[in-house]
Amino acid sequence: MTTPASTTTAPLPPRSARAGSAKTSPVRDLLALTERPEVISFAGGLPAPELFDLDGIRAAYDEVLRTPAVLQYSTSEGDRRLREIVAGQYTDDGLPTEATDLIVTTGSQQGLGLLSTALLDPGDAILVEEPCYLAALQTFALAGARVIGVPYAGDELDLDALDRLAAEHAPRFFYTVPTFQNPTGRTHGLVARERIADAARRHGFRVIEDEPYRQLRYSGAPLPSIASFAPDHVLSLGSFSKVIAPGLRIGWVRTTADIRPTVTIAKQAADLHTSTIDQAAAAHYLGSGRAAPALERIRTEYAARRDAMLDALPRTLPAGSTWNSPDGGMFVWARLPQGMDATAELARVLPHDVAFVPGAPFFAGPADERALRLSFTTYSPERIRVGLSRLGTALGSAR
Amino acid sequence: MTTPASTTTAPLPPRSARAGSAKTSPVRDLLALTERPEVISFAGGLPAPELFDLDGIRAAYDEVLRTPAVLQYSTSEGDRRLREIVAGQYTDDGLPTEATDLIVTTGSQQGLGLLSTALLDPGDAILVEEPCYLAALQTFALAGARVIGVPYAGDELDLDALDRLAAEHAPRFFYTVPTFQNPTGRTHGLVARERIADAARRHGFRVIEDEPYRQLRYSGAPLPSIASFAPDHVLSLGSFSKVIAPGLRIGWVRTTADIRPTVTIAKQAADLHTSTIDQAAAAHYLGSGRAAPALERIRTEYAARRDAMLDALPRTLPAGSTWNSPDGGMFVWARLPQGMDATAELARVLPHDVAFVPGAPFFAGPADERALRLSFTTYSPERIRVGLSRLGTALGSAR
Repeated sequence: MTTPASTTTAPLPPRSARAGSAKTSPVRDLLALTERPEVISFAGGLPAPELFDLDGIRAAYDEVLRTPAVLQYSTSEGDRRLREIVAGQYTDDGLPTEATDLIVTTGSQQGLGLLSTALLDPGDAILVEEPCYLAALQTFALAGARVIGVPYAGDELDLDALDRLAAEHAPRFFYTVPTFQNPTGRTHGLVARERIADAARRHGFRVIEDEPYRQLRYSGAPLPSIASFAPDHVLSLGSFSKVIAPGLRIGWVRTTADIRPTVTIAKQAADLHTSTIDQAAAAHYLGSGRAAPALERIRTEYAARRDAMLDALPRTLPAGSTWNSPDGGMFVWARLPQGMDATAELARVLPHDVAFVPGAPFFAGPADERALRLSFTTYSPERIRVGLSRLGTALGSAR
Repeated sequence: MTTPASTTTAPLPPRSARAGSAKTSPVRDLLALTERPEVISFAGGLPAPELFDLDGIRAAYDEVLRTPAVLQYSTSEGDRRLREIVAGQYTDDGLPTEATDLIVTTGSQQGLGLLSTALLDPGDAILVEEPCYLAALQTFALAGARVIGVPYAGDELDLDALDRLAAEHAPRFFYTVPTFQNPTGRTHGLVARERIADAARRHGFRVIEDEPYRQLRYSGAPLPSIASFAPDHVLSLGSFSKVIAPGLRIGWVRTTADIRPTVTIAKQAADLHTSTIDQAAAAHYLGSGRAAPALERIRTEYAARRDAMLDALPRTLPAGSTWNSPDGGMFVWARLPQGMDATAELARVLPHDVAFVPGAPFFAGPADERALRLSFTTYSPERIRVGLSRLGTALGSAR
């Protein structure tokens, strides 16, 4: 056994090719520009912290932290009581669900990674809505997926394109946020949901139905889940981030029986299990009776904020702009007039202490450079009016 | 736009090939066999819940849950105060570290996944100790790695084999648990640490130095980290699971500057960030002055448990068995005499209400069928004696 002299140093191996394909989040980089406290930023997707039920949540932690078991390792599938509560919500919602159908995740973001691990090998094709939730695009890029965007036809998903692209690419899955989508605030109607389920059955692809905003409905009637039309084909993701608070990082996958063991292995390899303490506290809080009124307060306040934004937008955006009026969620999706570029406009408006997110980064393929996303949940109606007034002045559209 | 009739159903796509390469954890399956409360199981790797500082931890949660900010989204890199505390520990330990060198993870298990994403493409070669921490093998399999085991020569890593295998396979990294390894309890000595660092520099591979047990030392002098000999080549993983409690799921990656942005993107894609609440509570607890005496209690008690096991093993294992005497950690590694098979023996001893883990599942390549792992942290010394007495009877080795 010899100890060789360390005369040479070989170069370090590079990062992985798949990591090279994922860009740092442009939203993240933009948010860095809006951190000055004087900026009213409609760019982020942050819930309103003053609406969190801090006392109720603290009481739940205090209660569960009286048993050493919450400090111990637990199962990869997650807290039994929490899974029973979530299963009950699905069942009440028309989608019969057992606790064993659910795997608790560290936020629903983790569910995207677990399903990518379980379903994707590098080079596999998947379909996404165009535009699409940005951090999902990142996760799919890191899995080496070939990501193909399904375009919208106006405000509706182009279902014929979905059919055509599914036939052409044999995708492993179609990823959708069907209700109050991020970034567009759009919701697939009943017919679209039936046709997505039907396409999944005919072409043999799965659907990942990501529902972080489902419970943030302020108007209109709830719609059945896509899963209810094709239970064997649809994997559902859920989250308490918008309903209790995001700091807990608790979400779940509702998985089909055929891939449940695989998703469980992926979860075990990912982080063994989600925080035992946070899971127990969430279950206790949901069982305490405080969650429902807290959510009702959040809904009422967010509805007022949405209305304040929609009321001000005609005075804010330049003539010829368009935008939608979502029934819930956190976002309004707008389009500047022909010839304007949202990224260029953001650079122009930032000195006026107001910000939004350009739509371009949310596209997997060629971007709509005129699009932008406005979040209405972070500020009070009064502050929204101040911010949009600044935006209108900056855009020169005061009229 | 037509709605096609749903007459045919295409078959669902299978799970990914990489998921198929990861087996469900055999330890997990075995643990299922030991869940009867009458079983004294030396199989698991569980800390002792009665030694957790439940009151101190509850007080920390109660304190931090007075500010809504702990319920909000936070940065992917993690809680600033927590990272400063960990950076201070590294620096005091002889490895100068800034908070910005650290990324908080959801347990150190997640660090394995983040580094796999950042460093590995499918088919890339990596080196591991043979035997190796089981859930690391799973994570590397899910990343599509070609896993090559570096054998031990007796109780020491075969450093010539490390050199030879590095030259032959050009691995992306060598994964090691250098101190009180899982499953073997083995620790790389000073010379081995220098030579591993030297091999990394000469061959141009990275080292992942996983240190969950470093602070669980009961005898002998601490050793410098491998990172201190080759700071640019070594990525370190750490965890509070053995020091505060595993239920919090808080670990970290100490990353080198060249791949820090890539690891940050991987973390963002994995779960956005680790629980804001758990991170804040951990930082508060560590700053409260209660953590150091609690860890001292844990060390004192685990040392007594290790001694109880080492004292009883000569009366427990059949003549011709061998085992080691680790200076810390949670595990003793034993070998049954020639001709005995640990998995077959486990099946024979389980009816006697006692259990261990066979060593075979921990091997990436051909297994040592005579090896087994015994955990000494879960039970009191008295209960360890009862359990090992049952094991001795079951193995027919009472003498």
